[in-house]
Amino acid sequence: MVDQSIPEARTPGTAPGETDAASAGEGISRRRMLGTAGATGLVLGTAGAAGGYAAAPSEAATPLTSLGTDRAMFHGKHQPGITDALQARGHVVAFDLAAGAGRKEAAALLRRWSETTRRLMAGEPSGHDDTDVARDAGPSSLTITFGFGHSFFARTGLEKQRPASLDPLPEFSSDRLDKKRSNGDLWVQIGANDSLVAFHALRAIQKDTGSAARVRWQMNGFNRSPGATAHPMTARNLMGQIDGTRNPKPAESDFDQRIFVPEKGEPTWMANGSYAVVRRIRMLLDDWEKLSGKAQEDVIGRRKSDGAALSGGTETTAMNLEKTDAEGNLVVPINAHARITRPDQNGGAAMLRRPFSFHDGIDTDGVPDAGLLFICWQADPLRGFVPVQRKLDRGDALSQFIRHESSGLFAVPGGAAKGEYVGQKLLEG
Amino acid sequence: MVDQSIPEARTPGTAPGETDAASAGEGISRRRMLGTAGATGLVLGTAGAAGGYAAAPSEAATPLTSLGTDRAMFHGKHQPGITDALQARGHVVAFDLAAGAGRKEAAALLRRWSETTRRLMAGEPSGHDDTDVARDAGPSSLTITFGFGHSFFARTGLEKQRPASLDPLPEFSSDRLDKKRSNGDLWVQIGANDSLVAFHALRAIQKDTGSAARVRWQMNGFNRSPGATAHPMTARNLMGQIDGTRNPKPAESDFDQRIFVPEKGEPTWMANGSYAVVRRIRMLLDDWEKLSGKAQEDVIGRRKSDGAALSGGTETTAMNLEKTDAEGNLVVPINAHARITRPDQNGGAAMLRRPFSFHDGIDTDGVPDAGLLFICWQADPLRGFVPVQRKLDRGDALSQFIRHESSGLFAVPGGAAKGEYVGQKLLEG
Repeated sequence: MVDQSIPEARTPGTAPGETDAASAGEGISRRRMLGTAGATGLVLGTAGAAGGYAAAPSEAATPLTSLGTDRAMFHGKHQPGITDALQARGHVVAFDLAAGAGRKEAAALLRRWSETTRRLMAGEPSGHDDTDVARDAGPSSLTITFGFGHSFFARTGLEKQRPASLDPLPEFSSDRLDKKRSNGDLWVQIGANDSLVAFHALRAIQKDTGSAARVRWQMNGFNRSPGATAHPMTARNLMGQIDGTRNPKPAESDFDQRIFVPEKGEPTWMANGSYAVVRRIRMLLDDWEKLSGKAQEDVIGRRKSDGAALSGGTETTAMNLEKTDAEGNLVVPINAHARITRPDQNGGAAMLRRPFSFHDGIDTDGVPDAGLLFICWQADPLRGFVPVQRKLDRGDALSQFIRHESSGLFAVPGGAAKGEYVGQKLLEG
Repeated sequence: MVDQSIPEARTPGTAPGETDAASAGEGISRRRMLGTAGATGLVLGTAGAAGGYAAAPSEAATPLTSLGTDRAMFHGKHQPGITDALQARGHVVAFDLAAGAGRKEAAALLRRWSETTRRLMAGEPSGHDDTDVARDAGPSSLTITFGFGHSFFARTGLEKQRPASLDPLPEFSSDRLDKKRSNGDLWVQIGANDSLVAFHALRAIQKDTGSAARVRWQMNGFNRSPGATAHPMTARNLMGQIDGTRNPKPAESDFDQRIFVPEKGEPTWMANGSYAVVRRIRMLLDDWEKLSGKAQEDVIGRRKSDGAALSGGTETTAMNLEKTDAEGNLVVPINAHARITRPDQNGGAAMLRRPFSFHDGIDTDGVPDAGLLFICWQADPLRGFVPVQRKLDRGDALSQFIRHESSGLFAVPGGAAKGEYVGQKLLEG
């Protein structure tokens, strides 16, 4: 049982056109990998994005028969964890390089991280002193994603390689940011459909840092478990809203252009990369829940039940911004969150929102310290996140029920080819 | 779609002999309940404890095809959440009655809590102002369990009903307890295989308190996702050990006698109830992970790979306490954790361990604030938890790698019959 190999792993949520032959056919050794499929002989549905935001609205959710054995690919055009289906458990962690550590130490660290990631995403133990916490489990759609913060470049003497897109985000008047939980030299996002697999990966990534870097901040999050619902667009947040309705879809012709830096973009080491904005957005749930359901829907501009715009139709029906009721009032209020954030009202800006919810216990006032680990992806933050947040900052109806408590902006390079490590073109360019 | 009902719900992890006809056949209304089974027409395996500690070692794990639709029963001989399979997500929360609130308010609160629990465990919305956070999802094996702490009885004028078994636990020399995170008038345990379903329940339970009680402490935990492994005894903790090997099994003839208060026990309102010991046990992972795998196995007395005793065999093979190696040394070291905690070395004491792991981010020293939300169940704490912990307190090999940071002891009454609420025999006795 221990040495059983699984020659054919499935690839959940791979973006169209993205292929990765590197790991196909590699046996998974040492760790027990008796997934539910193999062990029970169940008839399997097709593999694919199970209930994630990226599923096309007409698709039924993929049956959950392979939670443990599903795997994402490490090698590829893009890093994993951007277009993959939402995972049930997530960690984000920022590191600062240690005093004295520079470009050489950073390169060695990214090389270690990449090798650990390649192994863990394939369901193998980490290369050294594996803690056994993920033992018995499959990769469970584990993804690990790496990014560089603004401060990384001065510390490594790579200022000239720093993209203009990493310039600090503007200050928003509604921000209440904790600098200790913001930014950082290096950023890592971990997601998996099993909490122990995710924790195991977080600990392995932390141990890889050795003396080169130390944790600056770390946060935990979660999403719905695949299989808990068959609703095709399943992501609800802790306010009870369906979240991510207007996300661009990988099948759309301009998806890559909006989300990824072009192949011949600037700087060249960011080719096929993306920029991640990461914000801890606390939800003021006591205030929010005092509103009636109707009042909540007016704040958002969409129905809570199914995410349809208040102007009618289904979740995917275009919002009718002009529609009025019998008294002549706009059906979608003028300050409704979904009206303000509509991409076609923001110069076509688009970002791919791929968040986790968070819940860190009870605050001193008895209210859950809970909300959204907002993570969004775009080719250019100045055309994605910034213009939308500027509009929201002038006062959408939702702003009084949320509080931005931390913020980070990270340059996430493209995926590593086989034999490469993530960020190699920057660190050895 | 919205009003589709699910006439036949399955009962995961019900203990043998425990039946509950109360909710069978009740339709689930309002909430969308297109579970994977109904939506896809998959051939379903038999329902049962999926990968939980209670599975007999020879059983294969149950295929995970029904994560959302699986439900546990509220009404029954025992409360749910004791013998049910481990869930992927858990919350424990303690409340103190508000100043001025007494027996009457407590009775009304337990009545509200019981009705909310009955609804949520059936996959229905809570009765009032549902937040929609669990909308679209099935009950996902949700369980909610209620207990009374020592302090509850004086505050409600029920001192004469207070069981002797609720007398404060002895102080252990290795305890480093935070009183603010210990004990409490009322205790609630929530578990589900979906994080949003669990959060939704926690919030509904909190809102039910109104002005009668306030949160004293609250903690979050997790276990492996069902389906992440096919290993039949799957519970690993964050030290990488298989956890719960020696748990009594519901099929054993003395299981009920060890875990539940007898039908005609004392006090009578505790008939079919159980006592829960709840401890936040921090793991000192940096120290632990510095040990070699062999050294870790010597601390525990079992192999990390499969949980087998170091004296040989498989996970379920009885430990040979006398076996020596070629040099005459005991193969299972004299201070090994598993040797000291063996039930037959402790006067036959037995407790049912049903823990969650916890991970509350990174501590100031950069080490994860992580460990075990230890929850154990027994008919009598003085014969279950206490004698074992006394032995451990004298120094098992594991003690230097863990730290008991909080402690609670709660009387968990038997299950509510249809039309009753939990604790009714106490509060209206």
